[in-house]
Amino acid sequence: KKRYNIALLPGDGIGPEVISVAKIVLQKAGSLEGLEFDFQEMPVGGAALDLVGVPMPEQTFTAAKQSDAILLGAIGGYKWDKNEKHLRPEMALFYLRRDLKVFANLRPATVLPQLVDASTLKKEVAEGVDMMIVRELTGGIYFGEPRGIKINENGEEVGISTEIYAAHEVLNLDRIARVAFETARKRRGKLCSVDKANVLDASILWRKRVTALASEYPDVELSHMYVDNAAMQLIRDPKQFDTIVTNNIFGDILSDEASMITGSIGMLPSASLGESGPGLFEPIHGSAPDIAGQDKANPLATILSAAMLLKYGLGEEKAAKRIEDAVVDALNKGFRTGDIYSPGNKLVGCKEMGDEVLKSV
Amino acid sequence: KKRYNIALLPGDGIGPEVISVAKIVLQKAGSLEGLEFDFQEMPVGGAALDLVGVPMPEQTFTAAKQSDAILLGAIGGYKWDKNEKHLRPEMALFYLRRDLKVFANLRPATVLPQLVDASTLKKEVAEGVDMMIVRELTGGIYFGEPRGIKINENGEEVGISTEIYAAHEVLNLDRIARVAFETARKRRGKLCSVDKANVLDASILWRKRVTALASEYPDVELSHMYVDNAAMQLIRDPKQFDTIVTNNIFGDILSDEASMITGSIGMLPSASLGESGPGLFEPIHGSAPDIAGQDKANPLATILSAAMLLKYGLGEEKAAKRIEDAVVDALNKGFRTGDIYSPGNKLVGCKEMGDEVLKSV
Ligand SMILES: CC(C)[C@H](C(=O)O)[C@@H](O)C(=O)O
Ligand SMILES: CC(C)[C@H](C(=O)O)[C@@H](O)C(=O)O
Repeated sequence: KKRYNIALLPGDGIGPEVISVAKIVLQKAGSLEGLEFDFQEMPVGGAALDLVGVPMPEQTFTAAKQSDAILLGAIGGYKWDKNEKHLRPEMALFYLRRDLKVFANLRPATVLPQLVDASTLKKEVAEGVDMMIVRELTGGIYFGEPRGIKINENGEEVGISTEIYAAHEVLNLDRIARVAFETARKRRGKLCSVDKANVLDASILWRKRVTALASEYPDVELSHMYVDNAAMQLIRDPKQFDTIVTNNIFGDILSDEASMITGSIGMLPSASLGESGPGLFEPIHGSAPDIAGQDKANPLATILSAAMLLKYGLGEEKAAKRIEDAVVDALNKGFRTGDIYSPGNKLVGCKEMGDEVLKSV
Repeated sequence: KKRYNIALLPGDGIGPEVISVAKIVLQKAGSLEGLEFDFQEMPVGGAALDLVGVPMPEQTFTAAKQSDAILLGAIGGYKWDKNEKHLRPEMALFYLRRDLKVFANLRPATVLPQLVDASTLKKEVAEGVDMMIVRELTGGIYFGEPRGIKINENGEEVGISTEIYAAHEVLNLDRIARVAFETARKRRGKLCSVDKANVLDASILWRKRVTALASEYPDVELSHMYVDNAAMQLIRDPKQFDTIVTNNIFGDILSDEASMITGSIGMLPSASLGESGPGLFEPIHGSAPDIAGQDKANPLATILSAAMLLKYGLGEEKAAKRIEDAVVDALNKGFRTGDIYSPGNKLVGCKEMGDEVLKSV
């Protein structure tokens, strides 16, 4: 039997509920494929702040770092919203991403036929959408120096953030481009690189490197699009996209836009991968403090994150497929949590949805 | 009789067609209100490149600067797409905005009841959308220093762009906040400031200044939203927005997204205003080289830009109202250009649409 160490970081709000459901599903899918998991559950975010006073405790990071893969629930809540920047739950995400060096964030946005009505887009526009956004996660304006609020020679405040990428080394954008080309190759072979190369020098270099690497992937059809146009095209005709690659901040904006297009943000998983070391897997939705602890959360995004963990984190494609199929099965049987409910279906809570998926694994 | 000098910059692609139609409409609306216009038509963008080798000729700038208001068509085209950065048509826009110091860009996004079907959003979501995006236009990452592609100590290329705002002086964000509060006050009194203050220091200062100014506008209800969430909320429920204020790059992305939500980007005007000097008025659509010269373009965005010119540029609200009403009239009579056509209406070209508007002015 193969054994894997999995770090579970439930976090805040609905995090613990969805993680406990996803854990059981992961366990069953694994055991049917001869895999065994050792789970280590650690506090992160607001939960860690309350427990030990910092959003990302040393022990949690060590456990994460030493694991084979990390499954995270959600982070944040009203309670800590007034904290200073370095004592905010969200900082845990920064430290984790930066210190695990998980520079490639994969965010699928898929409209499942069962849920096409959940989109605010017209049916004929939303139907069949199936794209993957590859977002650079450890560089760009999120981490660039100089940054801060400084006082200039006239005694005035100046706020500075720096968008910065390089051809090689730490700010390396070749490696994110490679992940994107590889991802497109395994999908429909189309890659759209999104930038603002008509304005930003950081984007000009971005486009130059992506273009330079294209010759190594002759089977992938590369196109370029300005970010403002991409924000429009996602609404006008989202089906035109297969794989999108973009920088940290544009990826933040466009992946949220794309997720809302699917109408089922409670369904969408994500994977953050580095060159080596464990990957970080998490639903893209937030901690939803307003429904936390009420057994109302949709656990499917976290369950599908567990599937990504198996596929991208451990290379266990068969076990991953079991989970994906089981989710489709539960939807086909008409089970829906509140966020994706429509008349004629069966409204269930977080636990019951988990049980239904479990039956089909 | 009042006389005004108007600089007309038709530019490229469909620019000349829509400008010539809008000019006649402007003339008639003005003359009915006792206004006379002296028009000076000057080349800009690709047209100027072909004529004199630069996108923004000195004479064009002088004419623009000395006018009372500027009406611009559209800029750019495939033909010049491979030009070096400083010889691209789009650079004309930069120079114009920067040198005219038009820091406040007003971009309305309205769904007209006659055109609700043109949106890819479901009718009940699109219906009644009526927002104004106030975008900072002469600062932020578009103009911040340092910028460029540099070679670092290891001989590697590094691309750098700097997002920078200040409390006062040139990078002044108080003045854009004031325009936004004033704009909201004249609308439904709700202002949403969009930033990424959980990550970017430039956004932290942005939020701080906007918040500080709020006490001067007790009648305006101020809220804050992260840019990724704003990109989602625009699709989920665009009606929640009245006035949005945001920085240059986020404004670029969100205003294009918002315009596509209305489904009729061929309908949307914009105004760019400074503290003094002439304002710049232009449709938000591009030069559409594929349909240029075929009398197919929708002139309504430029006609409505002429209305904004009257209202915001010259303070001639009555003449502006004449144009706005005439546009609604032409739509009510069922006249549609190709981009907004739906069965049951009358398909017309650019000129005929102009004539129909003219009849109702
Ligand atoms: C919470 C926030 C800092 C984070 C980000 O901007 O990266 C989130 O929006 C995300 O996309 O994971
Ligand atoms: C053409 C381009 C440089 C410009 C911008 O980014 O400002 C355009 O997208 C706009 O929004 O007016």
